[in-house]
Amino acid sequence: MNKINRVAIVGGTHGNEFTGAFLVKKFTQYPQLIENYSFEILTLLANPQAFAATRRYIEKDLNRCFLAKDLQDNTLSTYEDIQAKNIAKILKEDTQTKADLVIDLHSTTANMGLSVILGNQQPLLLQLAAYLSAINPLVKVCYTIPESGSDFLRSLCNLGFVVEVGAVAQGVLNAELFQNTENLIYQILDYLDRYSRGETLEVKNKLTLYKLIGSIDFPRNEYGEIQAMIHPQLQYRDYEPLNPGDPIFLTLDGQAIAYEGTSTVYPIFINEAAYYEKGVAMCFTEKQELVISH
Amino acid sequence: MNKINRVAIVGGTHGNEFTGAFLVKKFTQYPQLIENYSFEILTLLANPQAFAATRRYIEKDLNRCFLAKDLQDNTLSTYEDIQAKNIAKILKEDTQTKADLVIDLHSTTANMGLSVILGNQQPLLLQLAAYLSAINPLVKVCYTIPESGSDFLRSLCNLGFVVEVGAVAQGVLNAELFQNTENLIYQILDYLDRYSRGETLEVKNKLTLYKLIGSIDFPRNEYGEIQAMIHPQLQYRDYEPLNPGDPIFLTLDGQAIAYEGTSTVYPIFINEAAYYEKGVAMCFTEKQELVISH
Repeated sequence: MNKINRVAIVGGTHGNEFTGAFLVKKFTQYPQLIENYSFEILTLLANPQAFAATRRYIEKDLNRCFLAKDLQDNTLSTYEDIQAKNIAKILKEDTQTKADLVIDLHSTTANMGLSVILGNQQPLLLQLAAYLSAINPLVKVCYTIPESGSDFLRSLCNLGFVVEVGAVAQGVLNAELFQNTENLIYQILDYLDRYSRGETLEVKNKLTLYKLIGSIDFPRNEYGEIQAMIHPQLQYRDYEPLNPGDPIFLTLDGQAIAYEGTSTVYPIFINEAAYYEKGVAMCFTEKQELVISH
Repeated sequence: MNKINRVAIVGGTHGNEFTGAFLVKKFTQYPQLIENYSFEILTLLANPQAFAATRRYIEKDLNRCFLAKDLQDNTLSTYEDIQAKNIAKILKEDTQTKADLVIDLHSTTANMGLSVILGNQQPLLLQLAAYLSAINPLVKVCYTIPESGSDFLRSLCNLGFVVEVGAVAQGVLNAELFQNTENLIYQILDYLDRYSRGETLEVKNKLTLYKLIGSIDFPRNEYGEIQAMIHPQLQYRDYEPLNPGDPIFLTLDGQAIAYEGTSTVYPIFINEAAYYEKGVAMCFTEKQELVISH
């Protein structure tokens, strides 16, 4: 077991995702809420300029600026590149502030409830995820892009992960989701605290993991213009099975388009606003039942 | 009766409100859908640069640029000021394109269903609104800021009004809302067509009108930072009665704040993302039962 000395709670990595940004503001304003743990807790509003402008980012997506080689590259000098270097200094390099575990808070217009998104399968993270799934019915666990070579903020730390909550519009604070996310953070901190104190933890052997296998763009014309929408039967149905032949899109003129895959998938990030520009109408995952070793 | 020669359907006045923008794109791509009417139909994507950037506006809110004196003021030269002058030329000045009726399509993160928002009480608009309310259960009718001296695009035309649909996130195309809005547009056009042909129309004498009486900001601290959220019991409850003493906000530290008014109001635009910067957490209306003269 490695002792946890410092946990970082990061919000506002995307400036228009208010849930995490306001939770960080709350913890800054009421530090007593996160005082009684066996580790230090550092809170960080990652993209303050984008938050002030209620935009995802000012010049480029901050959460794509954390490739190790980009952090070394002094020719990269947008606001977000510089901000990424500052954050890497705080969370990874400076021994006074270096975090042993990073929780990066995001929100989405997709109906993803409280999603814990892992970029690696560190035993502690899997155990934490299994524990959260067992005690909190809103929690889903995803495993997305392998951390090695990742450009995400969470990749600064071996024990880094994303909490992705939705559905909520960009630039909106939704009280119910805010409270659910705050509650989840306390559940995470409590678990880590007991782990860090060497307490015996309830063992959860099983974990349902939604593993990213790909994504699909909206149908577009030759100018790149979107020609179809998420089918109404699929909207808000994140984590539900999508079978070959099920409707996936509806063209502007009202024709259903079927999912043409050969196996059942479990879509996530369905109709996430920020992914229109990234060519992603939804991501596909496969559902795995994992047995965790302790 | 005044014959209607040309109807304008405007979308994308705010670039991140996709429902209207994509309906305009649909009608441009499939003009046969709006061909068989007794009047011409002009479609207009009002803020193409903001739409391309998925932002409400580039430099300033286009839908606040239509004051008559501002349209005359050549020192006003932001992208939106210039765009407003171009639109005024098309919809009001040029006799080849001048519209007799303007439908300006908007969307909102508030749960406003299909709202028809009037800026005046022209008999034709009241009759149209009463007709739509009677045949379409999703329709609500508001009367907001008097048109005289308004800075809204709709004020270019005596028979101008807004269709405001929600709840939908900014930068997102929601198929169900898209179809409901499209259906409403056909209902509007059908009514106007029969009116314009001099057909006898079913007379609806009664109209429920939600009349704007004010707005309220989020509680903020001395730095202007938001200290409370819309109370979960009020979220998505647009057009429902809010009584004195009902919870209206929830502070970041979990305290409910009661509505302190002295009479029942009917909030709209509850938690509209774009209104955070305008200091509006919601608007208040009073509910009126109007008897319409014919």
